Amino acid sequence: MLNFIQNLGLYTDFYELAMAQGYYFCGKKNETATFDYFFRTNPFQGGFTVFAGLADFLEILEQFTYSKEDIEFLKAQGFKPEFLNYLKKFRFSGNIFSMQEGEIVFPNEPVLKVESNIIEAQLVESLLLNILNFESLIATKAFRIKMVAGENVFSDFGLRRAQGFGSIYASRAACIGGASSTSNVLAGKLYGIPVTGTIAHSWIQSFDNELDAFRTYSQSNPEHVILLVDTYDTLRSGVPNAIIVGNELKEKGYRLKAIRLDSGDLAYLSKKARKMLDDAGLNDVKIIASNQLNEHVVQSLLHDQKAPIDTFGIGTEMITGKPDAALDGVYKLAEVNHQPKMKLSENIEKTTLPGNKQVYRFFDATGNFSIDGIFCSDESIQDLNPVYHPVYPEKNTILKGLNYESLLSSVVSNGKVIVKANSPAEIHNYAIKRAACLPVEHKRFISPHIYKVGISKKLLEKRNALTKQLNTQNYSK
Amino acid sequence: MLNFIQNLGLYTDFYELAMAQGYYFCGKKNETATFDYFFRTNPFQGGFTVFAGLADFLEILEQFTYSKEDIEFLKAQGFKPEFLNYLKKFRFSGNIFSMQEGEIVFPNEPVLKVESNIIEAQLVESLLLNILNFESLIATKAFRIKMVAGENVFSDFGLRRAQGFGSIYASRAACIGGASSTSNVLAGKLYGIPVTGTIAHSWIQSFDNELDAFRTYSQSNPEHVILLVDTYDTLRSGVPNAIIVGNELKEKGYRLKAIRLDSGDLAYLSKKARKMLDDAGLNDVKIIASNQLNEHVVQSLLHDQKAPIDTFGIGTEMITGKPDAALDGVYKLAEVNHQPKMKLSENIEKTTLPGNKQVYRFFDATGNFSIDGIFCSDESIQDLNPVYHPVYPEKNTILKGLNYESLLSSVVSNGKVIVKANSPAEIHNYAIKRAACLPVEHKRFISPHIYKVGISKKLLEKRNALTKQLNTQNYSK
Repeated sequence: MLNFIQNLGLYTDFYELAMAQGYYFCGKKNETATFDYFFRTNPFQGGFTVFAGLADFLEILEQFTYSKEDIEFLKAQGFKPEFLNYLKKFRFSGNIFSMQEGEIVFPNEPVLKVESNIIEAQLVESLLLNILNFESLIATKAFRIKMVAGENVFSDFGLRRAQGFGSIYASRAACIGGASSTSNVLAGKLYGIPVTGTIAHSWIQSFDNELDAFRTYSQSNPEHVILLVDTYDTLRSGVPNAIIVGNELKEKGYRLKAIRLDSGDLAYLSKKARKMLDDAGLNDVKIIASNQLNEHVVQSLLHDQKAPIDTFGIGTEMITGKPDAALDGVYKLAEVNHQPKMKLSENIEKTTLPGNKQVYRFFDATGNFSIDGIFCSDESIQDLNPVYHPVYPEKNTILKGLNYESLLSSVVSNGKVIVKANSPAEIHNYAIKRAACLPVEHKRFISPHIYKVGISKKLLEKRNALTKQLNTQNYSK
Repeated sequence: MLNFIQNLGLYTDFYELAMAQGYYFCGKKNETATFDYFFRTNPFQGGFTVFAGLADFLEILEQFTYSKEDIEFLKAQGFKPEFLNYLKKFRFSGNIFSMQEGEIVFPNEPVLKVESNIIEAQLVESLLLNILNFESLIATKAFRIKMVAGENVFSDFGLRRAQGFGSIYASRAACIGGASSTSNVLAGKLYGIPVTGTIAHSWIQSFDNELDAFRTYSQSNPEHVILLVDTYDTLRSGVPNAIIVGNELKEKGYRLKAIRLDSGDLAYLSKKARKMLDDAGLNDVKIIASNQLNEHVVQSLLHDQKAPIDTFGIGTEMITGKPDAALDGVYKLAEVNHQPKMKLSENIEKTTLPGNKQVYRFFDATGNFSIDGIFCSDESIQDLNPVYHPVYPEKNTILKGLNYESLLSSVVSNGKVIVKANSPAEIHNYAIKRAACLPVEHKRFISPHIYKVGISKKLLEKRNALTKQLNTQNYSK
């Protein structure tokens, strides 16, 4: 699989190609379409999601083409020559409107929309969902950790438990969420993320005893000494040996930067270790903790148990977005040739919103997020009507006098990417700034208050009219 | 990130490089080491794990080198020129012994071991863990689905919810576990997996009504018609329209292959749809079901509710290994320069097994797996002693008279891969054959019986002696 990264047009579900061929031959090949990307549930039973993945999606979109070999492969799958000729020259040439990476986003509102030829819009579906769902999941997980870690720094240590090459996007998304560095050197190089690390048990085991291992390591790189103290016995061996080396470094004009705890009860051990270090005059030596951490454990350690931990190394749960492991984002057709389209459902919450739309965010007098509203994109927002609950339209919210801004803006124009990719740290800063405007009740971990996303009167009416029409066309005959 | 796939030496944790440089300068650069790969817990609260990922790991291992640009990057991170010169020519040149892909494996036994120069063995750790942990997780998840699906076929539909490019390995591993095809066209091409798919809601929405959409699709590809019936209303619109098209196809000498249910209560809808199809004389039209499936839902649908579903499309939960999302595999140092090494732990279950080892599987008279035993690799197995419980050695098992086979065999010799990669389907067949020898009580989903993995007397004594020695060396002074 090493040669796949040039032409990624096959990075799609088979049915996208089957439908594309169908559109090609049934007279629809010049039709236009608008698709919306949105998700239905915030991950981790949370109250919000941090949007991420756009820059990676746009990068791959430019590589979404077909090599000769790909065309041969598709020929062998039974695709027709004329359609394959079309694919040979395939390149996405449409428009994409999106929220910014780092935006705080909510269920059911379009986070991104694609306006293009229907075949092009269809073919990029799987790629778009694959990247945006995943990075948004991980960015949200990391942001939740950041919320409880506060000034305490944490690093991504997840490569060994990551889902294959998913690790690369995951490390980027973890930094968008709030990780300050990664152990994944390749991700560090690709995205300009600081890379960090300590030492492993194997280093210590490879010596006859722990003290020799610590001494040798501290000599090899005296300016960056972090000692892992749980290879044999944290409090009886690891910390005492680290103190010996810490004092030796001091004598030579260096300092032991930190010790790392990687097993056992981190609250108990960090308190004991802190006292031992302080008693030895090593008050400036930090404590790093790792081992199956997540936002709940970090919260408990720092806030409930007041564990004197300075820095966290966070692996499995952040890099895989455990326990959810996926964001449920979907990509739904909203119009064809400027005619509104929708999918019905026995569950009205799963009925889609027809037509081309724009999302506005309304702010209260203090500058906090108040409500998001989904409007028809050709609708004037001057004379404000209320927005309606999408499922229970008898509930509505008056918007008059609220400041607002539109959230979807152009990122691809006629196939050309027109936005620059920001660094993960820049995107994180934007997420922090935006999340500061989200009232606290939406940010708590337990039963967060649901942030309101309403629909305009015009959109509500369009949906109701189209529902009626579709019911008639399909089965009320 | 598109150009990363050639030189993958940076696909590692930073500390591997930091330790490698440490070994290089502290006089250890010519030492040899043996590392074991093993995991501690079967995923999904199950009784076994299906090993997968070896071929992909070995493929990337051959690409585990450093480009000029990589060396520049490491230079900027502060690595020393002499060590960077070493990395310029880096190539893994050691030996690897492994169990076969598809093997049924258990916690705490070495599934793979690396014997090589200590720097080489250290540098490949993160890569090895990243791939083996992930593919074994997904293969196990898929195998569990296969156990309940039986003769019913299922496909991997997970690309859109997969963790970025993790999807590629995941689709392969899903087929090792038992998926018969994938929707991921790129994975299909790379691994020779059959690719499949149906149509999406967007196809149907793009037409004025569902019947037109069904008709047009069936005309475009009359030999492979599968109709998605839940866009508007499954039983009032989708199935009746599919029946119309099914009959039209029949008249033309074709047949409707299947309908697909993608929402609602799959048991209820499949029974109703089956009856409607049968009543219309379309008894040969299959029913495909998808929507948040996993091994428990498939079991309930097929076995508890007798839902007449022929084929499943399985997405999120299989492709991400939800809810576990990771296998907890680790890579631990077992010897240096042929001297045994181990890591102690306050938790004796996390104490590692020292020295170079071989794993034997013992079979009962019926050919079923009886127990696995971990032996010192230089130990004769002729005169059989019992094997001992690794944590409670007062418990032991007599092996006399049992047939056995060794499980770790050479796959890389002096840096050269000496095994060929089997296809996912071949590996699946091996897994099926082996799992047939695993007694049923280890295969049930609820509280499976724990399969015994013992250690030899010699290994037990080696571990106890080394524990004593390490305690003396480190803190009993």
